Amino acid sequence: MTNLSDIATPALLLDRKKVERNIARMAQRASELHVPLRPHGKTPKCDPVAAMLIEAGAIGLTVSTLAEAEGYFAGGVGDIFYAVGLSPDKIGRVAALAARGCRITALVDHPEMARQIAAQADSLGAIIPLVIEIDVDNYRAGILPQDPRFLQLASAVHAAPSLELRGIMSYGGASYGCSAEAAAELAEMHRLALLSAAEMLRNAGLPCEMVSFGSSPATLHALSMEGLTELRCGIYVFQDLFQAAIGACAIDDIALSVLTTVIGVREDLNRVIIDAGGLAMSKDLSTAKTDQNAGFGLVCDESGAVIPDVYISVTSQELGLLSTFCGRPLPYDRMPLGAKLRILPNHADMTAAAYPGYHVLSDGLRVEDFWTRHNGW
Amino acid sequence: MTNLSDIATPALLLDRKKVERNIARMAQRASELHVPLRPHGKTPKCDPVAAMLIEAGAIGLTVSTLAEAEGYFAGGVGDIFYAVGLSPDKIGRVAALAARGCRITALVDHPEMARQIAAQADSLGAIIPLVIEIDVDNYRAGILPQDPRFLQLASAVHAAPSLELRGIMSYGGASYGCSAEAAAELAEMHRLALLSAAEMLRNAGLPCEMVSFGSSPATLHALSMEGLTELRCGIYVFQDLFQAAIGACAIDDIALSVLTTVIGVREDLNRVIIDAGGLAMSKDLSTAKTDQNAGFGLVCDESGAVIPDVYISVTSQELGLLSTFCGRPLPYDRMPLGAKLRILPNHADMTAAAYPGYHVLSDGLRVEDFWTRHNGW
Repeated sequence: MTNLSDIATPALLLDRKKVERNIARMAQRASELHVPLRPHGKTPKCDPVAAMLIEAGAIGLTVSTLAEAEGYFAGGVGDIFYAVGLSPDKIGRVAALAARGCRITALVDHPEMARQIAAQADSLGAIIPLVIEIDVDNYRAGILPQDPRFLQLASAVHAAPSLELRGIMSYGGASYGCSAEAAAELAEMHRLALLSAAEMLRNAGLPCEMVSFGSSPATLHALSMEGLTELRCGIYVFQDLFQAAIGACAIDDIALSVLTTVIGVREDLNRVIIDAGGLAMSKDLSTAKTDQNAGFGLVCDESGAVIPDVYISVTSQELGLLSTFCGRPLPYDRMPLGAKLRILPNHADMTAAAYPGYHVLSDGLRVEDFWTRHNGW
Repeated sequence: MTNLSDIATPALLLDRKKVERNIARMAQRASELHVPLRPHGKTPKCDPVAAMLIEAGAIGLTVSTLAEAEGYFAGGVGDIFYAVGLSPDKIGRVAALAARGCRITALVDHPEMARQIAAQADSLGAIIPLVIEIDVDNYRAGILPQDPRFLQLASAVHAAPSLELRGIMSYGGASYGCSAEAAAELAEMHRLALLSAAEMLRNAGLPCEMVSFGSSPATLHALSMEGLTELRCGIYVFQDLFQAAIGACAIDDIALSVLTTVIGVREDLNRVIIDAGGLAMSKDLSTAKTDQNAGFGLVCDESGAVIPDVYISVTSQELGLLSTFCGRPLPYDRMPLGAKLRILPNHADMTAAAYPGYHVLSDGLRVEDFWTRHNGW
């Protein structure tokens, strides 16, 4: 056991009990919807969290990088969906995972890319399992099911000796920033689009064992997920200020924070300076688009209690400047020179990416473990 | 030699000839000013670049983290200034560097922090060399020279058996975003403030061998640096879109770029999707505050030639969406599926932080080496 005061800052803290609570809550939600979860491993990038997710009923993981896929597979997760459009430069690593016994599935959304992947897989003597990304809301990537190339693509993947068609997936990013009612409505449109695309495949005699639905807000608010084979959500394991701002969690659910030290006090400028800056927090300002702007992060004391009205207003590479939203004097007695503070992040994924791993808190103030992350690509 | 087409993306590219040119240009500028450079190692975090800087006349390096200090010292740099306010949690590592023969200097700006540092150094049996940060523009940290605590602090550092007073430093961040004339004027105010603070120390019988001036724009535009012992600038070694936007360099001087692969094309949405998103580029949007907004980065072809009017308009964690500023159709023939592109970053320091190192380009399209970075804290 290490005390927080002995940890060099900036450092990443993870409250294990909050992670457990967040995981249990979403597992319960998936159980109500009668659809299993394939949580997104890009938020934790961490084996012990993956083990907790699997223990809670997850059928496998989603990943955003091959570093995650390789790390999680080595850590014991056998079923992994790499949910970023595959390109030829990455096929060797996908094939190596498959050859080692990983049930890996990759993603394609264009006949030309399927052709390139098939050619590369051929040259490696590999078989690459693929799902096709369906665009349900023009938000990001995918192919429109009504595009005649959709069935051409599916047929081409099914026919290619070096490819295997596993089904379809979609990501409903447009449901971020919606009201609960609008998110539920979008989720239903999203679900029906997937079911109709799956039916097109089956009517054409093509396999479609995987019908994978992604979007945390939609999963929270959907009325039904019938017909889907899995749900993908990620940020819920840690939560963050953006999720709180859109009503997906409470501030108290946020399991991730950055431990920092007060290294400067300038009462004449109403400013406190900490050693968590742009690299320690990331430059993510996503809450600025909501009605709960948190600057670069909200400030808590060493025990994790929010210090009201205090936030990081400015960052340079290694420094953060604390201010009050209302312009009143900072509570200097709660942030003396040398004191430790904790900062809640806007976007857990972006903040955590700067660190090799998590100092894991057992009872709020003591560190019981260090969990490493699968960073990079 | 590796070809760019063989590198898995996203990956960081560094054009060695541009780095050499940028280093030579700033060395020439310092020579004109008759003040040696102590370049900021927080931009490259990389030993071969440090060696080029020392070869070009740098008297040592500035660093922003102890990971940089330890890495650069192991790589052969003997004189290192850790220019972030020191706190007790970091003293053991500073002392260890000093004990191994590194001429390391740390930073303090408050009597209370000096007291904490002295107590911790005492308990370790170490002597910590310090300079005092002077605030010249209310921009960030430091103590005002006219504050009576300035001389108290200097005397206390000089008197403490476990501390050593080396002098003063300042950072003139307010000179960012100024015209050349205003930057020159600020540089002169900044210089005079340092000289007057140094004189206060010397008049009080206190040592002041180091009078260290920091700010890239001020260094570029200053008319005189007389009386200073060293200049600290960093970003010039790589340059970036923000530096170009404020007139500190040309686009062609930018030595750093992110290699990415086109993984999606949606002509119906006028969108191309690449595998460089928020983690690969960072969420830095600093050019949005200038009249040369570049979104999350400007797009070049594989050879590094800018593709006019194309930029990353939206990022998610691993995806970037390309758009045109003017709304005209994207030049799809220059960015087919599977093609490699290069993205110029807004802020080189933030973008580079996500990567273990640089693929070093010799002649534009071929990689001659891989240089690792001293990431983390």
